[in-house]
Order: sequence, then C-alpha cells, then structure tokens
Amino acid sequence: MRFTSERLLDDGVVEREFILGEIPGILWTPASASAPVSPILLSPPPIGLRRAYPRLVGRARSAAAQGFASATIELPGYGDRPRLPGAEQAAADLRRALEAGEPVTDEIIDALVLPLVERAVPEWQAVLDDLLRLPGIGGPAGYSGGVISIGTRLAAVEPRISAAVLFAGSFVPRVIFEEARQVTVPLHVLLQWDDEGNDRQAALDLFDAYASEEKTLHANLGGHRGVPQFAGEEAERFFVRHLRRKLR
Amino acid sequence: MRFTSERLLDDGVVEREFILGEIPGILWTPASASAPVSPILLSPPPIGLRRAYPRLVGRARSAAAQGFASATIELPGYGDRPRLPGAEQAAADLRRALEAGEPVTDEIIDALVLPLVERAVPEWQAVLDDLLRLPGIGGPAGYSGGVISIGTRLAAVEPRISAAVLFAGSFVPRVIFEEARQVTVPLHVLLQWDDEGNDRQAALDLFDAYASEEKTLHANLGGHRGVPQFAGEEAERFFVRHLRRKLR
Repeated sequence: MRFTSERLLDDGVVEREFILGEIPGILWTPASASAPVSPILLSPPPIGLRRAYPRLVGRARSAAAQGFASATIELPGYGDRPRLPGAEQAAADLRRALEAGEPVTDEIIDALVLPLVERAVPEWQAVLDDLLRLPGIGGPAGYSGGVISIGTRLAAVEPRISAAVLFAGSFVPRVIFEEARQVTVPLHVLLQWDDEGNDRQAALDLFDAYASEEKTLHANLGGHRGVPQFAGEEAERFFVRHLRRKLR
Repeated sequence: MRFTSERLLDDGVVEREFILGEIPGILWTPASASAPVSPILLSPPPIGLRRAYPRLVGRARSAAAQGFASATIELPGYGDRPRLPGAEQAAADLRRALEAGEPVTDEIIDALVLPLVERAVPEWQAVLDDLLRLPGIGGPAGYSGGVISIGTRLAAVEPRISAAVLFAGSFVPRVIFEEARQVTVPLHVLLQWDDEGNDRQAALDLFDAYASEEKTLHANLGGHRGVPQFAGEEAERFFVRHLRRKLR
C-alpha cells in the first residue's frame, strides 16, 4: 500500500489515496484517536470508484466520527482497471435477456458475477493485510459493501472480518448461496424493497441462508439508490456494537 | 378514564392504573416535561396484561426516557375480561389443524382474529380520546403493538395515529390485507425471522401491501419472544423521528 496523496477534510478526517500493486484506493482515518481504530473495508458499488466517491466519502466520514478507519479500492474491471474477460459478453447477454423479458439464467449470472468475486476477494484480503500493518489501525475488521456476492464470500473465507453490512441488490450465483451457509459473523443486510432489477425473493433467500446467529435484515421502501439516511445510521450502530465491543 | 392507583417508578416514571368503562389499563408518563408529550398506544401481545406487564413496562420506560407517554389496556377476551364468543371454538379448530399438519384455513383465521380486531380498534380509539384530554399529553400519537391486524386496522381508520410499530407474528385475515392498502402513515415492522407458528411469507406479503411511503421491515433471527434489545431501540428511534419532529 503506497500512499500517493493526502488531504485533510473539513471535519478533520484524513483522506489518503494509495496504490496497492496496480489497484488504486482511498483510505480515510479519523482526526485523532488514542487507541488503534478498527478498519472497515468499504467496497464500492460496481459503477467505478470515481462515480461512487460521493457516497463512499459520506459513509467513510460517518464511520470516522464513530472512530473507524475506512478503505476502498477500485473493483476489478472498473475505472482504469482492465476489463474482466467475458464481462462484456455477460453484460450483453444480461441486457438481451432483460429486454426480451426472458429469465436471467444461472449461466448469465455466473458469467457476470463470479469472475468479479474471484478477483475481488483476495484483493480485499491484501488490503486488510496492509491496513493492519499501519500504525493506529488494529482490532476487528468490518466489511461494508455493494456487491453482496463479494461480501458473502469474503465473510465466509476471511476470519479477520468480524461483522459485515451487506447491500442486497445484485444477481447472486448459486454457489454463493452455498457459501452463505458458511458465514457465521454478525450480519446487517440492507434491502431496498422496490429495487428495480433486483430479485427480492433471491435477496430474502440469501438472507435466510446465512448461518450467522445474529443477522438482521433492514428493508426500506424505494429504489436502488434510495437507502434512507436513518438506515445508514442504523448500519453504523451495527458496526459500533460489533467492532467496538470486541476491541475492549 | 378513571385512575385507580398511582406509583412512582425508580426512574421517575409515573405509573397509573385506570379503568376505562370496564376495561383495565395502565398509563406511564415521563418524570417531568415542559411541553405536552405524545402518547403511544402500547398494545399488549395476546397473553393477558398481567403476563405481558414486564415487557410492556420495559418499553414504556424506554419510551418515557424519550419523552413519550404510553398507555396499554387489557385486550378483549383476555385477563378478567369476558371471553369473546366463538374464541374457544376458533382456538380449538386452530390447534386441531396445526396438530394434524393441515393448512390453517381462512375461516379459522377469520374466526380467531376478526372478533378481536372488531372490538379492540374502537377501544383504542376511546383510549386515545381520553389520553388527549389529559393535561400534559398532546400532539401526534403512535401505536406499538402485538396483534398486527389490530394495528393495521387502527392505522387505516384512525387519522390521529401518525406512526406505528407493528410486530409481525400472528395470523392475518384476508380482509386485513385489503385494509393494509389504506395505511399511509410511516410504519416500522418487526419480524422475527424464525418465529414458530408465524407465517413468514404472510408477514412479507402484508409488509408489501401497506401503502405507506415510509415503511421499514426489520427482520431479526430468533423466535417470537427473541426480539433483540437493539431492535427495540431502533423502534424507539423511529418514534422519535416521527412523533417528535411533528410536534415542532
């Protein structure tokens, strides 16, 4: 993790851009902290880091106010990163199926989502490795993010993730449903009830599949980007409950 | 509303028992308030007021800490109140169906729930009439309660209810699904995901049916009585958002 820029936001949060291998990312840390702060992996929605920035910085600043550091990286295939093999074909197949009113097959969903999951998960683990080596960052880590399949696999395979906020709202491959049964950390799942292009039943089935003893589903009215402010605040309190408590 | 006893709880909350007509009830008011406090109709679960008391007083005290008054009454057919006609037969039919593994028919659900709803709703309206005549109580009212069909009809017909917390977890007659389409106030619905004897799909369908522009479903793991403490706190913040804001 090589830092390339640093600036101070008006609330005292430090925003540093970095490069990890060839992956660009951003780290936000609270103004001052007497003890190490827990890191939250802030996975962007699949729209590219530049477009996602306003949403991400908002969430990172709120998290910093609660004493958490947040880090994000460009997802594989987005921004200036090379497109994933088969991604264009998969996107075209999806568009064709949706336009024709045909069912979106498992093949299309797998081709669309699995290459992204397979690359993204080890990248987030590398981010976590480096974050935990930084002075002032330590303790249990959280994950908060947009592509629920990435968060599900990461929570299933990475024991350093202690709690996860997951946003339902994308297609979910069958294998991810199986992996959900391996997830045991506390989960806070946000579902936009009227999300266009989101399969509500699949989201409910996925929530049901997680093995976590504490899992909460918060469904709110409105479309994909309409998560109400109070729902964001509830997600933050979830991290406070699970990341702060374990620090002590 | 005739008060029959008064005592001061250790946090300064005043607990007064009352009789309304022949219905026993309890009113809890905050220690001190400079402005009128909003009332919350705290509908008990269908187990009788005496058994429900520990849960109700806990919620009333938390509500008082936020500056709300809470009132509860014995539901029709519970405690010392006369049993509802047909209630025993309906309960026996339900038991038989469940034991035989047969579907619970609309007829059984209607016979079990509708007589209760038909009597309870005007009673809650009478409680509200009297509460709003008391000194120190005023402003928009909330409803928080256990039999979701009662809360649904009350929210549909009573314009003085400004926000409702509803607990999914009982059988819902078909006519209540229709009435849900008339409900437009902000709703906060709590669903215990693994509630024994609760039809999860019916709860999700009912949530979908409400016409409210702001409605939130909070699903948590665990059985009927396992609502986690943080879920109760979230419901309280919902009332703070909707009842306090409108007071100003």
